[in-house]
Amino acid sequence: MNAGRGSRSGSLTRHDLAERDRTDPLAPFRARFRLPEGLIYLDGNSLGPPSRRMRARMDAVVAEEWGRDLIGSWNRHGWFRLPERVGARIAPLLGVDADEVIAADSVSLNLFKLLGALLRVTGERRVVLADEGNFPTDLHVAAGLTRLLADTGASLRLVPPEEFEAALAADVAVATLTQVDFRTGRKRDLQRVTEAARRSGVPVVWDLSHSAGALSLDLHRDGVQYAVGCGYKYLNGGPGAPGFLYVARELQETLDSPLAGWMGHAHPFDCGLEHDPAPGMRRFLVGTPPILSMMALEEGLRAFEDVAMDEVRRKGRALGDLFLELAEERLDAFGVVPGSPRDSAARGSQVSLRHAEAYPVMQALIARGVVGDFREPDYLRFGLAPLFVRYVDIWDAVAALGEVLAREEYRKPRFRRRREVT
Amino acid sequence: MNAGRGSRSGSLTRHDLAERDRTDPLAPFRARFRLPEGLIYLDGNSLGPPSRRMRARMDAVVAEEWGRDLIGSWNRHGWFRLPERVGARIAPLLGVDADEVIAADSVSLNLFKLLGALLRVTGERRVVLADEGNFPTDLHVAAGLTRLLADTGASLRLVPPEEFEAALAADVAVATLTQVDFRTGRKRDLQRVTEAARRSGVPVVWDLSHSAGALSLDLHRDGVQYAVGCGYKYLNGGPGAPGFLYVARELQETLDSPLAGWMGHAHPFDCGLEHDPAPGMRRFLVGTPPILSMMALEEGLRAFEDVAMDEVRRKGRALGDLFLELAEERLDAFGVVPGSPRDSAARGSQVSLRHAEAYPVMQALIARGVVGDFREPDYLRFGLAPLFVRYVDIWDAVAALGEVLAREEYRKPRFRRRREVT
Repeated sequence: MNAGRGSRSGSLTRHDLAERDRTDPLAPFRARFRLPEGLIYLDGNSLGPPSRRMRARMDAVVAEEWGRDLIGSWNRHGWFRLPERVGARIAPLLGVDADEVIAADSVSLNLFKLLGALLRVTGERRVVLADEGNFPTDLHVAAGLTRLLADTGASLRLVPPEEFEAALAADVAVATLTQVDFRTGRKRDLQRVTEAARRSGVPVVWDLSHSAGALSLDLHRDGVQYAVGCGYKYLNGGPGAPGFLYVARELQETLDSPLAGWMGHAHPFDCGLEHDPAPGMRRFLVGTPPILSMMALEEGLRAFEDVAMDEVRRKGRALGDLFLELAEERLDAFGVVPGSPRDSAARGSQVSLRHAEAYPVMQALIARGVVGDFREPDYLRFGLAPLFVRYVDIWDAVAALGEVLAREEYRKPRFRRRREVT
Repeated sequence: MNAGRGSRSGSLTRHDLAERDRTDPLAPFRARFRLPEGLIYLDGNSLGPPSRRMRARMDAVVAEEWGRDLIGSWNRHGWFRLPERVGARIAPLLGVDADEVIAADSVSLNLFKLLGALLRVTGERRVVLADEGNFPTDLHVAAGLTRLLADTGASLRLVPPEEFEAALAADVAVATLTQVDFRTGRKRDLQRVTEAARRSGVPVVWDLSHSAGALSLDLHRDGVQYAVGCGYKYLNGGPGAPGFLYVARELQETLDSPLAGWMGHAHPFDCGLEHDPAPGMRRFLVGTPPILSMMALEEGLRAFEDVAMDEVRRKGRALGDLFLELAEERLDAFGVVPGSPRDSAARGSQVSLRHAEAYPVMQALIARGVVGDFREPDYLRFGLAPLFVRYVDIWDAVAALGEVLAREEYRKPRFRRRREVT
């Protein structure tokens, strides 16, 4: 065909990769998803695709649970316990117990609950410490909380990622950190950072939005006590799926969530005002959960049944290594430089490349049927969801990117920047 | 047949009511809903039923928007603007403008946003005043907020419904009230109470959960400045549908929501930490909204297209009057007493009856295919959603209740109390 679509790069051929797919122990799981024909979807870290059974499941929820059994479904179909049921499916992906995770609200709101509760129990310490590399919403949440509590001396301290550990001072009440950087894919060492913070008396709330479902996590081993994460990325729960919270069992009942609502109360219909949070993780519920969205999350999580998370992690690293290797060999000449760590142990399940025209380049690539996303200021980001991304997809994606660059397709006016929201 | 199923009561016959249904201007709208054959559903104020088009719409959202267009749907299918789009459909039901309402999170969380923002701007006044007749979650929210802000002198003051106006003291920062009492259906006068509070310098956040979609509201006329409400009751948005917020236009940008997240930020992807809330109502968004649940709410709201809300209100009053009249004539002998105001002008679109054995009575009634709900301590509650409830349904419901009582069906062991959650 042409240089970009060549079948050999360095010592590798596309055929080699097809062979790798053939022997990939995760290959059978791709059939669990419904992916548009011909599309290479490297954006499962923004919005995971629906599972193959999603349509049927959601139709049953609408027609039979909501439509036929109506209000009775709260008991008959277990809607009342759905947040715990979904949490129990997330727990093994985190390496924790079923009763330590609950699905609720959004990542942002869940972070507010934990930061607010921890700021209250830490007494004289009034600083919320955050890595400025966090996804913006985490910083907005922390800023909103500390503004609300400004009269109590609360404040937010932001530091660059590399200065985080040095900033664990004696006035820090609680810290929040993202394990995998949403732009670069840089991965933090959960165990080391948690331990360093603990030595300084600082509880850490980890944001695992770009970790859960893509890494092989063992929060118990790593001493992680608090975490939040996202349901619509690698967990495939659908657009705006509820997020989750994890709190180590022995700490759950030490926390008083500032967002108190009936679903988190020990007696939801009691009209007394006594402060009586529900036992365990349920205290972190607030209002009535969005059942349809939460059912989709439950269905999305079924794609992880019988999946070995160490295989997922192994393949995620291999896909990323392959992507960076091919990019180096074939895209170097076009001003593309790596935007992610080369060492896969220091990287989540995503890779970024940097290019001065990253925005229109990504639009042109999407027009060719390879979906990644642009991130400020100049990142081309590619999510590598090991359950459905194939090795040949990486080959084809890099080839398509090579063509976009070689032919300068990104200079077409239709790829110019407009407002972009995701 | 028997006394309970008789076709005449006082001066009325079932035939008269069938005739009333025949000439009811709202009768054609019943066909917009999907209701199980033979069921009399008087619980649309707990969970509205799906519209007839709901299955097809949700399937299209899952298959075409999420499944086919994936991440591109945020722009292509307007997901990013969905909270405003849904808000614009709620606005006419409240008598306000499209840009004064937004759909978001839950009633509880929306109340927290407004109480938190108002508590901050009211300076030295530190009391949140609440009617103890509010639905419990509203009280839990207010209590959670004031506990969080206890060090700033914030506190919660609870008063019985009838003492509310007298409690509008000079230390009150903000008050929260429900227009229609969830148990009794007692309806407050929005205009009079709002005006009384305004004279005391107290902003009121109204909870319109049991009003929106059932009453003919005109918040502008009534001087209401702040409100929240529920999407899954009379708005038929599906289980746990997002709630809504209303803020009068000129006040929107005076408020700084304590729950700040990326979706409410002027520049969602900006990584600076400058406090820059989005213009207008969007500032009250926090994390990514649950798109599937919000799409269902949008579809549910389409049932209100071309519906005259004054007709809805008129029929709601008539249904309630009929219910109480029939109950008095036919159920008096069984120890049933009215639990709602007899004057329909002082009542929302629901009626309650009281009975010492209300819990098992309601279970036995549900077993007969008439669905209402039990509320503590002894209420049999019936929601009268005028778009799908018929006059003959009221006749049949009272007749069935008469049989449950006359035959003492409620004494069967299977109707005994277990934990009940909705």
